[in-house]
Amino acid sequence: MTTGVRRRMGVEERRQQLIGVALELFSHRSPDEVSIDEIAAAAGISRPLVYHYFPGKQSLYEAALRRAADELAARFDEPREGPLGARLLRVMERFFGFVDEHGPGFSALMRGGPAVGSSTTNAMIDEVRQAAYEQILDHLGVGNPPARLALVVRSWVSLAESTALLWLDGREIPRAELELQLVHDFAALMAVGAAYDPATERIVLRILADEPPDGPFGELVGRLVGMASALPAVPGPRGTAT
Amino acid sequence: MTTGVRRRMGVEERRQQLIGVALELFSHRSPDEVSIDEIAAAAGISRPLVYHYFPGKQSLYEAALRRAADELAARFDEPREGPLGARLLRVMERFFGFVDEHGPGFSALMRGGPAVGSSTTNAMIDEVRQAAYEQILDHLGVGNPPARLALVVRSWVSLAESTALLWLDGREIPRAELELQLVHDFAALMAVGAAYDPATERIVLRILADEPPDGPFGELVGRLVGMASALPAVPGPRGTAT
Repeated sequence: MTTGVRRRMGVEERRQQLIGVALELFSHRSPDEVSIDEIAAAAGISRPLVYHYFPGKQSLYEAALRRAADELAARFDEPREGPLGARLLRVMERFFGFVDEHGPGFSALMRGGPAVGSSTTNAMIDEVRQAAYEQILDHLGVGNPPARLALVVRSWVSLAESTALLWLDGREIPRAELELQLVHDFAALMAVGAAYDPATERIVLRILADEPPDGPFGELVGRLVGMASALPAVPGPRGTAT
Repeated sequence: MTTGVRRRMGVEERRQQLIGVALELFSHRSPDEVSIDEIAAAAGISRPLVYHYFPGKQSLYEAALRRAADELAARFDEPREGPLGARLLRVMERFFGFVDEHGPGFSALMRGGPAVGSSTTNAMIDEVRQAAYEQILDHLGVGNPPARLALVVRSWVSLAESTALLWLDGREIPRAELELQLVHDFAALMAVGAAYDPATERIVLRILADEPPDGPFGELVGRLVGMASALPAVPGPRGTAT
Protein backbone atom coordinates (compact mmCIF):
# COMPACT_ATOMS: atom_id res chain seq x y z
CA MET A 1 0.00 0.00 0.00
CA THR A 2 1.43 3.36 -1.02
CA THR A 3 0.30 6.79 0.06
CA GLY A 4 -1.09 7.29 -3.46
CA VAL A 5 -3.39 4.30 -3.06
CA ARG A 6 -4.56 5.49 0.36
CA ARG A 7 -5.26 8.94 -1.07
CA ARG A 8 -7.39 7.47 -3.90
CA MET A 9 -9.31 5.37 -1.34
CA GLY A 10 -9.94 8.56 0.62
CA VAL A 11 -11.44 10.23 -2.42
CA GLU A 12 -13.81 7.34 -3.02
CA GLU A 13 -14.76 7.17 0.65
CA ARG A 14 -15.49 10.89 0.68
CA ARG A 15 -17.60 10.53 -2.46
CA GLN A 16 -19.54 7.68 -0.87
CA GLN A 17 -20.05 9.69 2.32
CA LEU A 18 -21.36 12.66 0.31
CA ILE A 19 -23.71 10.38 -1.64
CA GLY A 20 -25.06 8.99 1.64
CA VAL A 21 -25.58 12.45 3.13
CA ALA A 22 -27.19 13.69 -0.10
CA LEU A 23 -29.48 10.64 -0.36
CA GLU A 24 -30.65 11.23 3.20
CA LEU A 25 -31.49 14.88 2.40
CA PHE A 26 -33.00 14.16 -1.03
CA SER A 27 -35.15 11.41 0.53
CA HIS A 28 -36.76 13.58 3.16
CA ARG A 29 -37.46 16.74 1.19
CA SER A 30 -38.20 17.48 -2.43
CA PRO A 31 -34.77 17.53 -4.16
CA ASP A 32 -35.31 21.04 -5.57
CA GLU A 33 -35.48 22.31 -1.97
CA VAL A 34 -32.09 20.83 -1.02
CA SER A 35 -29.10 23.11 -1.58
CA ILE A 36 -25.41 22.29 -1.99
CA ASP A 37 -24.80 24.43 1.11
CA GLU A 38 -27.01 22.13 3.16
CA ILE A 39 -25.30 19.03 1.83
CA ALA A 40 -21.89 20.57 2.65
CA ALA A 41 -23.05 21.45 6.17
CA ALA A 42 -24.53 17.98 6.75
CA ALA A 43 -21.28 16.38 5.55
CA GLY A 44 -19.17 18.76 7.67
CA ILE A 45 -17.17 20.07 4.72
CA SER A 46 -17.02 23.32 2.76
CA ARG A 47 -19.14 24.09 -0.28
CA PRO A 48 -16.10 24.29 -2.62
CA LEU A 49 -14.99 20.85 -1.40
CA VAL A 50 -18.38 19.38 -2.42
CA TYR A 51 -17.75 20.79 -5.92
CA HIS A 52 -14.33 19.14 -5.84
CA TYR A 53 -16.06 15.74 -5.75
CA PHE A 54 -19.19 16.50 -7.79
CA PRO A 55 -19.45 19.12 -10.55
CA GLY A 56 -22.91 20.21 -9.38
CA LYS A 57 -26.10 19.35 -7.59
CA GLN A 58 -27.51 17.40 -10.54
CA SER A 59 -24.54 15.00 -10.62
CA LEU A 60 -24.73 14.48 -6.85
CA TYR A 61 -28.49 13.93 -7.14
CA GLU A 62 -27.94 11.36 -9.88
CA ALA A 63 -25.29 9.56 -7.82
CA ALA A 64 -27.68 9.43 -4.84
CA LEU A 65 -30.44 8.17 -7.12
CA ARG A 66 -28.08 5.50 -8.48
CA ARG A 67 -27.52 4.21 -4.94
CA ALA A 68 -31.26 4.31 -4.16
CA ALA A 69 -32.10 2.49 -7.42
CA ASP A 70 -29.58 -0.27 -6.65
CA GLU A 71 -30.95 -0.59 -3.12
CA LEU A 72 -34.53 -0.83 -4.37
CA ALA A 73 -33.67 -3.38 -7.06
CA ALA A 74 -31.88 -5.48 -4.40
CA ARG A 75 -35.13 -5.54 -2.37
CA PHE A 76 -36.86 -7.36 -5.24
CA ASP A 77 -34.60 -10.39 -4.64
CA GLU A 78 -36.69 -13.17 -3.19
CA PRO A 79 -35.91 -16.91 -3.03
CA ARG A 80 -37.78 -19.06 -5.58
CA GLU A 81 -39.40 -21.11 -2.83
CA GLY A 82 -42.94 -21.56 -1.60
CA PRO A 83 -46.21 -20.15 -2.97
CA LEU A 84 -45.97 -17.13 -5.26
CA GLY A 85 -48.52 -15.07 -3.33
CA ALA A 86 -46.44 -15.19 -0.14
CA ARG A 87 -43.25 -14.33 -2.06
CA LEU A 88 -44.91 -11.35 -3.70
CA LEU A 89 -46.22 -10.15 -0.35
CA ARG A 90 -42.70 -10.18 1.14
CA VAL A 91 -41.41 -8.17 -1.82
CA MET A 92 -44.27 -5.66 -1.41
CA GLU A 93 -43.39 -5.27 2.28
CA ARG A 94 -39.80 -4.43 1.35
CA PHE A 95 -40.94 -2.12 -1.46
CA PHE A 96 -43.21 -0.14 0.88
CA GLY A 97 -40.36 -0.07 3.40
CA PHE A 98 -38.22 1.64 0.77
CA VAL A 99 -41.01 4.06 -0.17
CA ASP A 100 -41.56 4.83 3.51
CA GLU A 101 -37.88 5.63 4.08
CA HIS A 102 -37.53 7.79 0.97
CA GLY A 103 -41.06 9.28 0.85
CA PRO A 104 -40.69 12.91 -0.27
CA GLY A 105 -37.77 12.11 -2.58
CA PHE A 106 -39.66 9.20 -4.13
CA SER A 107 -42.74 11.39 -4.72
CA ALA A 108 -40.73 14.21 -6.25
CA LEU A 109 -38.82 11.84 -8.52
CA MET A 110 -41.87 9.92 -9.73
CA ARG A 111 -43.95 13.06 -10.26
CA GLY A 112 -41.16 14.61 -12.35
CA GLY A 113 -40.28 18.26 -12.52
CA PRO A 114 -37.33 20.50 -13.32
CA ALA A 115 -35.00 19.42 -10.49
CA VAL A 116 -35.50 15.69 -10.93
CA GLY A 117 -36.54 14.93 -14.51
CA SER A 118 -33.67 14.27 -16.91
CA SER A 119 -32.85 11.57 -19.41
CA THR A 120 -30.46 10.09 -16.80
CA THR A 121 -33.01 9.95 -13.99
CA ASN A 122 -35.73 8.64 -16.34
CA ALA A 123 -33.36 5.91 -17.53
CA MET A 124 -32.70 4.87 -13.91
CA ILE A 125 -36.44 4.69 -13.18
CA ASP A 126 -36.97 2.53 -16.28
CA GLU A 127 -34.08 0.30 -15.23
CA VAL A 128 -35.70 -0.40 -11.84
CA ARG A 129 -39.05 -1.07 -13.57
CA GLN A 130 -37.31 -3.49 -15.92
CA ALA A 131 -35.63 -5.26 -12.96
CA ALA A 132 -39.02 -5.67 -11.28
CA TYR A 133 -40.56 -6.99 -14.50
CA GLU A 134 -37.77 -9.54 -15.04
CA GLN A 135 -37.90 -10.73 -11.42
CA ILE A 136 -41.63 -11.36 -11.66
CA LEU A 137 -41.36 -13.28 -14.93
CA ASP A 138 -38.62 -15.37 -13.36
CA HIS A 139 -40.84 -16.10 -10.35
CA LEU A 140 -43.65 -17.01 -12.74
CA GLY A 141 -41.24 -19.42 -14.46
CA VAL A 142 -41.89 -17.73 -17.80
CA GLY A 143 -38.95 -17.10 -20.11
CA ASN A 144 -40.72 -15.79 -23.20
CA PRO A 145 -44.02 -14.23 -22.06
CA PRO A 146 -47.06 -13.89 -24.33
CA ALA A 147 -47.64 -10.20 -25.22
CA ARG A 148 -50.71 -10.05 -22.98
CA LEU A 149 -48.84 -11.42 -19.96
CA ALA A 150 -45.92 -9.04 -20.55
CA LEU A 151 -48.35 -6.11 -20.56
CA VAL A 152 -50.14 -7.34 -17.43
CA VAL A 153 -46.86 -7.64 -15.50
CA ARG A 154 -45.55 -4.26 -16.66
CA SER A 155 -48.84 -2.54 -15.93
CA TRP A 156 -48.92 -4.08 -12.45
CA VAL A 157 -45.41 -2.73 -11.78
CA SER A 158 -46.77 0.67 -12.72
CA LEU A 159 -49.79 0.12 -10.47
CA ALA A 160 -47.48 -0.66 -7.54
CA GLU A 161 -45.68 2.66 -8.16
CA SER A 162 -48.86 4.69 -8.37
CA THR A 163 -50.40 2.98 -5.34
CA ALA A 164 -47.27 3.80 -3.32
CA LEU A 165 -47.42 7.44 -4.51
CA LEU A 166 -51.10 7.70 -3.58
CA TRP A 167 -50.34 6.16 -0.18
CA LEU A 168 -47.60 8.75 0.49
CA ASP A 169 -50.15 11.49 -0.16
CA GLY A 170 -51.78 11.41 3.28
CA ARG A 171 -51.08 7.79 4.32
CA GLU A 172 -54.79 7.26 5.00
CA ILE A 173 -54.80 3.51 4.46
CA PRO A 174 -52.42 1.41 6.60
CA ARG A 175 -49.34 0.40 4.64
CA ALA A 176 -49.82 -3.32 5.35
CA GLU A 177 -53.29 -3.27 3.77
CA LEU A 178 -51.91 -1.83 0.56
CA GLU A 179 -49.06 -4.35 0.45
CA LEU A 180 -51.66 -7.12 0.56
CA GLN A 181 -53.95 -5.27 -1.83
CA LEU A 182 -51.20 -5.08 -4.43
CA VAL A 183 -50.68 -8.84 -4.22
CA HIS A 184 -54.41 -9.21 -4.79
CA ASP A 185 -54.34 -6.66 -7.59
CA PHE A 186 -51.64 -8.76 -9.23
CA ALA A 187 -53.86 -11.83 -9.04
CA ALA A 188 -56.87 -9.86 -10.29
CA LEU A 189 -55.05 -8.35 -13.28
CA MET A 190 -53.53 -11.74 -14.12
CA ALA A 191 -57.00 -13.29 -13.95
CA VAL A 192 -58.36 -10.67 -16.36
CA GLY A 193 -55.47 -11.39 -18.74
CA ALA A 194 -56.13 -15.12 -18.37
CA ALA A 195 -59.86 -14.75 -19.04
CA TYR A 196 -59.16 -13.59 -22.60
CA ASP A 197 -55.77 -15.10 -23.48
CA PRO A 198 -55.33 -18.91 -23.37
CA ALA A 199 -51.51 -18.73 -23.09
CA THR A 200 -51.84 -16.49 -20.02
CA GLU A 201 -54.62 -18.70 -18.63
CA ARG A 202 -52.34 -21.78 -18.64
CA ILE A 203 -49.71 -19.89 -16.64
CA VAL A 204 -52.25 -18.53 -14.15
CA LEU A 205 -53.86 -21.94 -13.58
CA ARG A 206 -50.44 -23.51 -13.02
CA ILE A 207 -49.57 -20.85 -10.40
CA LEU A 208 -52.93 -20.96 -8.63
CA ALA A 209 -52.77 -24.77 -8.40
CA ASP A 210 -49.67 -24.33 -6.19
CA GLU A 211 -51.30 -21.77 -3.89
CA PRO A 212 -52.55 -22.84 -0.46
CA PRO A 213 -56.24 -21.99 0.21
CA ASP A 214 -55.21 -19.78 3.13
CA GLY A 215 -52.52 -17.88 1.15
CA PRO A 216 -53.22 -14.38 -0.21
CA PHE A 217 -54.31 -15.68 -3.64
CA GLY A 218 -56.54 -18.49 -2.36
CA GLU A 219 -58.20 -16.23 0.18
CA LEU A 220 -58.99 -13.59 -2.44
CA VAL A 221 -60.50 -16.09 -4.88
CA GLY A 222 -62.69 -17.48 -2.09
CA ARG A 223 -63.93 -14.00 -1.16
CA LEU A 224 -64.62 -13.05 -4.77
CA VAL A 225 -66.49 -16.27 -5.48
CA GLY A 226 -68.55 -15.53 -2.37
CA MET A 227 -69.27 -11.99 -3.59
CA ALA A 228 -70.18 -13.20 -7.08
CA SER A 229 -72.63 -15.75 -5.69
CA ALA A 230 -74.52 -12.88 -3.98
CA LEU A 231 -75.33 -11.38 -7.37
CA PRO A 232 -78.57 -12.29 -9.10
CA ALA A 233 -77.69 -11.52 -12.70
CA VAL A 234 -74.25 -13.08 -13.10
CA PRO A 235 -73.85 -16.36 -14.99
CA GLY A 236 -72.35 -19.19 -12.93
CA PRO A 237 -69.43 -21.44 -13.85
CA ARG A 238 -69.38 -22.57 -17.48
CA GLY A 239 -72.29 -20.28 -18.38
CA THR A 240 -75.02 -21.90 -16.27
CA ALA A 241 -77.26 -19.44 -14.39
CA THR A 242 -76.95 -19.54 -10.60
CA MET B 1 -67.59 46.10 -35.50
CA THR B 2 -64.58 48.40 -35.66
CA THR B 3 -61.24 47.75 -37.29
CA GLY B 4 -59.76 47.55 -33.79
CA VAL B 5 -62.05 44.67 -32.85
CA ARG B 6 -61.27 42.88 -36.14
CA ARG B 7 -57.55 43.31 -35.51
CA ARG B 8 -57.82 41.75 -32.00
CA MET B 9 -59.81 38.85 -33.48
CA GLY B 10 -57.03 38.36 -36.01
CA VAL B 11 -54.45 38.04 -33.24
CA GLU B 12 -56.50 35.44 -31.40
CA GLU B 13 -57.21 33.56 -34.61
CA ARG B 14 -53.52 33.53 -35.44
CA ARG B 15 -52.69 32.26 -31.96
CA GLN B 16 -55.28 29.50 -32.29
CA GLN B 17 -53.92 28.56 -35.72
CA LEU B 18 -50.37 28.38 -34.33
CA ILE B 19 -51.57 26.26 -31.39
CA GLY B 20 -53.25 23.87 -33.83
CA VAL B 21 -50.15 23.60 -36.02
CA ALA B 22 -47.92 23.12 -32.97
CA LEU B 23 -50.21 20.49 -31.43
CA GLU B 24 -50.14 18.54 -34.69
CA LEU B 25 -46.30 18.61 -34.72
CA PHE B 26 -45.90 17.95 -30.96
CA SER B 27 -48.35 15.02 -31.27
CA HIS B 28 -46.47 13.18 -33.99
CA ARG B 29 -42.90 13.61 -32.81
CA SER B 30 -41.26 14.00 -29.44
CA PRO B 31 -41.64 17.71 -28.54
CA ASP B 32 -37.89 18.18 -28.02
CA GLU B 33 -37.42 17.30 -31.72
CA VAL B 34 -39.82 20.00 -32.94
CA SER B 35 -38.25 23.41 -33.65
CA ILE B 36 -39.82 26.85 -33.82
CA ASP B 37 -38.58 27.00 -37.43
CA GLU B 38 -40.66 23.96 -38.30
CA ILE B 39 -43.73 25.38 -36.59
CA ALA B 40 -43.25 28.65 -38.48
CA ALA B 41 -42.87 26.79 -41.80
CA ALA B 42 -45.94 24.62 -41.12
CA ALA B 43 -47.97 27.73 -40.26
CA GLY B 44 -46.67 29.58 -43.33
CA ILE B 45 -45.29 32.50 -41.31
CA SER B 46 -41.83 33.75 -40.35
CA ARG B 47 -39.96 32.67 -37.24
CA PRO B 48 -40.00 36.21 -35.75
CA LEU B 49 -43.78 36.31 -36.23
CA VAL B 50 -44.13 33.11 -34.15
CA TYR B 51 -42.22 34.88 -31.37
CA HIS B 52 -44.60 37.81 -31.73
CA TYR B 53 -47.44 35.52 -30.55
CA PHE B 54 -45.54 33.24 -28.16
CA PRO B 55 -42.42 34.19 -26.18
CA GLY B 56 -40.80 30.80 -26.84
CA LYS B 57 -41.24 27.15 -27.63
CA GLN B 58 -42.15 26.25 -24.03
CA SER B 59 -45.11 28.66 -23.95
CA LEU B 60 -46.33 27.38 -27.33
CA TYR B 61 -45.91 23.80 -26.12
CA GLU B 62 -47.90 24.57 -22.98
CA ALA B 63 -50.66 26.24 -25.02
CA ALA B 64 -50.84 23.16 -27.28
CA LEU B 65 -50.93 20.91 -24.22
CA ARG B 66 -53.73 23.03 -22.75
CA ARG B 67 -55.82 22.42 -25.86
CA ALA B 68 -55.01 18.68 -25.82
CA ALA B 69 -55.85 18.40 -22.11
CA ASP B 70 -59.24 20.10 -22.64
CA GLU B 71 -59.94 17.84 -25.60
CA LEU B 72 -59.08 14.71 -23.60
CA ALA B 73 -61.14 15.79 -20.57
CA ALA B 74 -64.10 16.41 -22.91
CA ARG B 75 -63.83 12.79 -24.12
CA PHE B 76 -64.54 11.58 -20.56
CA ASP B 77 -68.07 13.05 -20.82
CA GLU B 78 -70.52 10.18 -21.01
CA PRO B 79 -74.30 10.22 -20.37
CA ARG B 80 -75.37 8.75 -17.00
CA GLU B 81 -77.50 6.11 -18.72
CA GLY B 82 -77.37 2.35 -19.00
CA PRO B 83 -74.98 -0.14 -17.38
CA LEU B 84 -71.67 1.22 -16.06
CA GLY B 85 -69.52 -1.35 -17.90
CA ALA B 86 -70.80 -0.22 -21.30
CA ARG B 87 -70.32 3.46 -20.37
CA LEU B 88 -66.76 2.85 -19.27
CA LEU B 89 -66.01 0.93 -22.47
CA ARG B 90 -67.20 3.86 -24.61
CA VAL B 91 -64.97 6.23 -22.62
CA MET B 92 -61.99 3.86 -23.06
CA GLU B 93 -62.60 3.78 -26.82
CA ARG B 94 -62.47 7.58 -26.93
CA PHE B 95 -59.40 7.65 -24.63
CA PHE B 96 -57.48 5.24 -26.89
CA GLY B 97 -58.62 7.29 -29.88
CA PHE B 98 -56.95 10.31 -28.30
CA VAL B 99 -53.79 8.34 -27.45
CA ASP B 100 -53.70 6.97 -31.01
CA GLU B 101 -53.93 10.47 -32.53
CA HIS B 102 -51.31 12.00 -30.23
CA GLY B 103 -49.05 8.95 -29.76
CA PRO B 104 -45.45 10.25 -29.74
CA GLY B 105 -46.41 13.48 -27.98
CA PHE B 106 -48.40 11.57 -25.34
CA SER B 107 -45.48 9.20 -24.72
CA ALA B 108 -42.94 12.01 -24.44
CA LEU B 109 -45.16 13.99 -22.08
CA MET B 110 -46.02 11.07 -19.79
CA ARG B 111 -42.43 9.80 -19.68
CA GLY B 112 -41.20 13.26 -18.71
CA GLY B 113 -37.91 14.80 -19.73
CA PRO B 114 -36.32 18.21 -20.16
CA ALA B 115 -38.51 19.48 -23.04
CA VAL B 116 -41.81 18.45 -21.54
CA GLY B 117 -41.54 18.26 -17.75
CA SER B 118 -42.32 21.49 -15.90
CA SER B 119 -44.55 22.43 -13.02
CA THR B 120 -47.06 23.78 -15.60
CA THR B 121 -47.18 20.59 -17.67
CA ASN B 122 -47.30 18.40 -14.54
CA ALA B 123 -50.19 20.47 -13.20
CA MET B 124 -52.09 19.96 -16.47
CA ILE B 125 -51.55 16.20 -16.33
CA ASP B 126 -52.81 16.12 -12.74
CA GLU B 127 -55.83 18.20 -13.75
CA VAL B 128 -56.82 15.63 -16.42
CA ARG B 129 -56.31 12.80 -13.91
CA GLN B 130 -58.52 14.64 -11.43
CA ALA B 131 -61.22 15.16 -14.11
CA ALA B 132 -61.17 11.42 -14.86
CA TYR B 133 -61.37 10.57 -11.15
CA GLU B 134 -64.34 12.89 -10.57
CA GLN B 135 -66.20 11.62 -13.64
CA ILE B 136 -65.87 8.03 -12.46
CA LEU B 137 -67.07 8.81 -8.94
CA ASP B 138 -70.03 10.62 -10.45
CA HIS B 139 -70.84 7.58 -12.63
CA LEU B 140 -70.54 5.40 -9.54
CA GLY B 141 -73.02 7.70 -7.80
CA VAL B 142 -70.56 8.26 -4.96
CA GLY B 143 -70.16 11.77 -3.56
CA ASN B 144 -67.87 11.12 -0.64
CA PRO B 145 -65.85 7.97 -1.40
CA PRO B 146 -64.33 5.73 1.30
CA ALA B 147 -60.50 6.06 1.27
CA ARG B 148 -60.11 2.58 -0.23
CA LEU B 149 -62.49 3.34 -3.11
CA ALA B 150 -60.79 6.67 -3.78
CA LEU B 151 -57.45 4.90 -4.02
CA VAL B 152 -58.84 2.16 -6.29
CA VAL B 153 -60.30 4.71 -8.71
CA ARG B 154 -57.15 6.86 -8.76
CA SER B 155 -54.90 3.85 -9.22
CA TRP B 156 -57.09 2.60 -12.07
CA VAL B 157 -56.77 5.99 -13.80
CA SER B 158 -53.02 5.55 -13.50
CA LEU B 159 -53.31 1.99 -14.85
CA ALA B 160 -55.20 3.29 -17.90
CA GLU B 161 -52.35 5.73 -18.56
CA SER B 162 -49.62 3.14 -18.23
CA THR B 163 -51.53 0.59 -20.32
CA ALA B 164 -51.91 3.17 -23.08
CA LEU B 165 -48.18 3.99 -22.89
CA LEU B 166 -47.26 0.31 -23.05
CA TRP B 167 -49.60 -0.14 -26.01
CA LEU B 168 -47.92 2.74 -27.89
CA ASP B 169 -44.58 0.98 -27.48
CA GLY B 170 -45.00 -1.50 -30.35
CA ARG B 171 -48.82 -1.72 -30.53
CA GLU B 172 -48.61 -5.52 -30.25
CA ILE B 173 -52.07 -6.05 -28.76
CA PRO B 174 -55.06 -4.71 -30.73
CA ARG B 175 -56.34 -1.46 -29.26
CA ALA B 176 -59.89 -2.77 -28.86
CA GLU B 177 -58.69 -5.63 -26.66
CA LEU B 178 -56.97 -3.22 -24.29
CA GLU B 179 -60.01 -0.94 -24.14
CA LEU B 180 -62.05 -3.93 -22.97
CA GLN B 181 -59.25 -5.16 -20.71
CA LEU B 182 -59.17 -1.83 -18.88
CA VAL B 183 -62.91 -2.06 -18.22
CA HIS B 184 -62.28 -5.52 -16.80
CA ASP B 185 -59.28 -4.27 -14.84
CA PHE B 186 -61.55 -1.66 -13.31
CA ALA B 187 -64.00 -4.34 -12.22
CA ALA B 188 -61.17 -6.53 -10.92
CA LEU B 189 -59.53 -3.76 -8.88
CA MET B 190 -62.92 -2.69 -7.53
CA ALA B 191 -63.63 -6.30 -6.56
CA VAL B 192 -60.31 -6.52 -4.67
CA GLY B 193 -61.17 -3.29 -2.85
CA ALA B 194 -64.63 -4.65 -2.09
CA ALA B 195 -63.27 -7.95 -0.76
CA TYR B 196 -61.59 -6.13 2.13
CA ASP B 197 -63.63 -2.95 2.64
CA PRO B 198 -67.37 -3.23 3.43
CA ALA B 199 -68.15 0.36 2.31
CA THR B 200 -66.59 -0.38 -1.08
CA GLU B 201 -68.34 -3.75 -1.25
CA ARG B 202 -71.78 -2.15 -0.90
CA ILE B 203 -71.03 0.16 -3.85
CA VAL B 204 -69.66 -2.67 -6.00
CA LEU B 205 -72.64 -4.93 -5.32
CA ARG B 206 -75.05 -2.13 -6.17
CA ILE B 207 -73.28 -1.52 -9.49
CA LEU B 208 -72.98 -5.20 -10.41
CA ALA B 209 -76.68 -5.76 -9.68
CA ASP B 210 -77.45 -3.32 -12.53
CA GLU B 211 -75.11 -5.02 -15.01
CA PRO B 212 -76.58 -7.28 -17.69
CA PRO B 213 -75.07 -10.81 -17.76
CA ASP B 214 -73.80 -10.20 -21.32
CA GLY B 215 -72.20 -6.80 -20.53
CA PRO B 216 -68.44 -6.47 -20.00
CA PHE B 217 -68.69 -6.85 -16.20
CA GLY B 218 -71.10 -9.79 -16.20
CA GLU B 219 -69.12 -11.63 -18.84
CA LEU B 220 -65.87 -11.24 -16.88
CA VAL B 221 -67.37 -12.47 -13.62
CA GLY B 222 -68.77 -15.51 -15.42
CA ARG B 223 -65.38 -16.32 -16.92
CA LEU B 224 -63.56 -15.86 -13.62
CA VAL B 225 -66.01 -18.02 -11.72
CA GLY B 226 -65.50 -20.64 -14.42
CA MET B 227 -61.72 -20.41 -14.05
CA ALA B 228 -61.92 -20.58 -10.24
CA SER B 229 -64.07 -23.72 -10.41
CA ALA B 230 -61.27 -25.44 -12.36
CA LEU B 231 -58.94 -25.07 -9.37
CA PRO B 232 -58.67 -27.87 -6.83
CA ALA B 233 -57.39 -25.96 -3.81
CA VAL B 234 -59.60 -22.89 -3.72
CA PRO B 235 -62.40 -22.56 -1.17
CA GLY B 236 -65.86 -22.18 -2.70
CA PRO B 237 -68.55 -19.57 -1.90
CA ARG B 238 -68.94 -18.73 1.79
CA GLY B 239 -65.87 -20.77 2.71
CA THR B 240 -67.17 -24.21 1.80
CA ALA B 241 -64.64 -26.40 -0.03
CA THR B 242 -65.54 -27.24 -3.64
